Amino acid sequence: MAVYTEVSDEALARFLEGYDLGVALSLKGIAEGVENSNFLLHAERGAYLLTLYEKRVDEADLPFFLGLMEHLAQRGVNCPQPVRARDGSAIGRLAGRAAAIVTFLEGLSVRRPAVAHCGEVGEALARMHAAGADFAISRRNALSIHGWPALFEAARGRADEVVPGLARETETQLRALQEIWPRGLPSGVIHADLFPDNVFFLRDRLSGLIDFYFACNDFLAYDLGVCLNSWAFETSGEFNVSKGRAMIEGYNRVRALSPEEVEALPILARGSALRFMLTRLVDWLNVPPGALVKPHDPREYLTKLRFHTSVQSARDYGWRA
Amino acid sequence: MAVYTEVSDEALARFLEGYDLGVALSLKGIAEGVENSNFLLHAERGAYLLTLYEKRVDEADLPFFLGLMEHLAQRGVNCPQPVRARDGSAIGRLAGRAAAIVTFLEGLSVRRPAVAHCGEVGEALARMHAAGADFAISRRNALSIHGWPALFEAARGRADEVVPGLARETETQLRALQEIWPRGLPSGVIHADLFPDNVFFLRDRLSGLIDFYFACNDFLAYDLGVCLNSWAFETSGEFNVSKGRAMIEGYNRVRALSPEEVEALPILARGSALRFMLTRLVDWLNVPPGALVKPHDPREYLTKLRFHTSVQSARDYGWRA
Repeated sequence: MAVYTEVSDEALARFLEGYDLGVALSLKGIAEGVENSNFLLHAERGAYLLTLYEKRVDEADLPFFLGLMEHLAQRGVNCPQPVRARDGSAIGRLAGRAAAIVTFLEGLSVRRPAVAHCGEVGEALARMHAAGADFAISRRNALSIHGWPALFEAARGRADEVVPGLARETETQLRALQEIWPRGLPSGVIHADLFPDNVFFLRDRLSGLIDFYFACNDFLAYDLGVCLNSWAFETSGEFNVSKGRAMIEGYNRVRALSPEEVEALPILARGSALRFMLTRLVDWLNVPPGALVKPHDPREYLTKLRFHTSVQSARDYGWRA
Repeated sequence: MAVYTEVSDEALARFLEGYDLGVALSLKGIAEGVENSNFLLHAERGAYLLTLYEKRVDEADLPFFLGLMEHLAQRGVNCPQPVRARDGSAIGRLAGRAAAIVTFLEGLSVRRPAVAHCGEVGEALARMHAAGADFAISRRNALSIHGWPALFEAARGRADEVVPGLARETETQLRALQEIWPRGLPSGVIHADLFPDNVFFLRDRLSGLIDFYFACNDFLAYDLGVCLNSWAFETSGEFNVSKGRAMIEGYNRVRALSPEEVEALPILARGSALRFMLTRLVDWLNVPPGALVKPHDPREYLTKLRFHTSVQSARDYGWRA
């Protein structure tokens, strides 16, 4: 659940006076994302998503996030589109927070992705990468390989409480990845968090992508690694090669992977598994009492990390040259 | 926050096959009510509220609640209207819970009710009472004066942790109310929980009433007592006579209060203050660790209870004969 800040009817009415959306018809706090307060706003002009940015989002990053959504939407990617106020700005202030209104995207997340869903996600990811190629602003990936040591330090002392030996295993992984991490791969704007929660489908066709608040610049194929991790494993922990193949082939149909990217894929997927294992571990070890959000289990990503470590080549993900 | 049960895309699609609403376009868990899981559902036919009934609601009461909403809506009360499945039933099963779809009501709750809002609420309450007069089903008020002793027993031992002397003061109040509680007043279906959260306004005109899950049969004027408590006090704890007057006069314009009801109003308002003080006290003393819902402060209603105890007659609420 994610409504950390309440918005009064009076504050909302004042805020909407700056927009061309008519008056508010309803405002419902919704369970979407974990970083910000999100509301489904029905206004006279239609349905919108109102987001209040909470402390985990750096306001200095908002022009990147909102500008990216606008840029992608203009290039045909179906994603929430920032609504500008009459003064031209996409970012306002409401209830003491930076706030933005974006178009409301219809669609439902799939709980149990099938092979066909994975294929569509691969295609959509490649389309997003292509559409983002000429986006003018860039944002460093704070959760890339350079950010992992600090995450590890934050969890190291208590990692073994979660899985015995985890501190040592993580350190070994981190060192190995630092040695073999690829250089010079095609880079650009990546979503960096394209989990099933963030992809909408309508009648089994992909209808949109949401939640660009981890978007940043990094290796494009790293984003494919994130998606392989979040879409192609069964809940049992097993990798589903049919799903992996559908996803990689879907991606490759829209944007051809270079031989270097294909070769690096196991390392990138392994690094992405380490990244989510580490952030989940830190959250897991730091759940405040009475927390509104139940943290994700880091062990899910430890299993995935181990799988990728055992992988010989992209063929193990279903890739056929 | 109130989403206790998750609904998968697949379960939702199967559920909607029984209705004439088209396919689901989106489903968002929303923060509405505290008893059930509520979702704003966009379907091809429009916007709806999907409710999954959690353990605090007795399934045997659902025909009363849903039948009442249907009955009231047919008589012009703007409230959520149950949507019947193709087989004619208003209650189905989803994700292991009893579930219902009702029409989505646009509107916003007012955070700081003004005098005019109170007048409209009084009128709407009287209209609801009139519309409910010929509703065929009845439901005992489990939280009436007969239910307060059990609530008190549940809190008695630890009441003084909240306010020193509270156990004794509550016992005195309970005994006094049991002696002076009126008999034979006009009775019928009451909302029993018409707090500002449950009343919607659009452009400062009352646009609808929601959340009928405490509705039951009791003295009609008791419902006015509930509203005086939840609308006519300032956050400072002071009673606002202008708001009280607007509310009582609004009610009286639509349904004339009998002299007996006017005379009993201070007792009914006092009893209603005790009822909310007691339920809040029980919740306050029994917050489970990691609770998703922050309980309301019982002391707010202790202040109100004391005020009503000091009241001489309905004139102190603004009533003018």
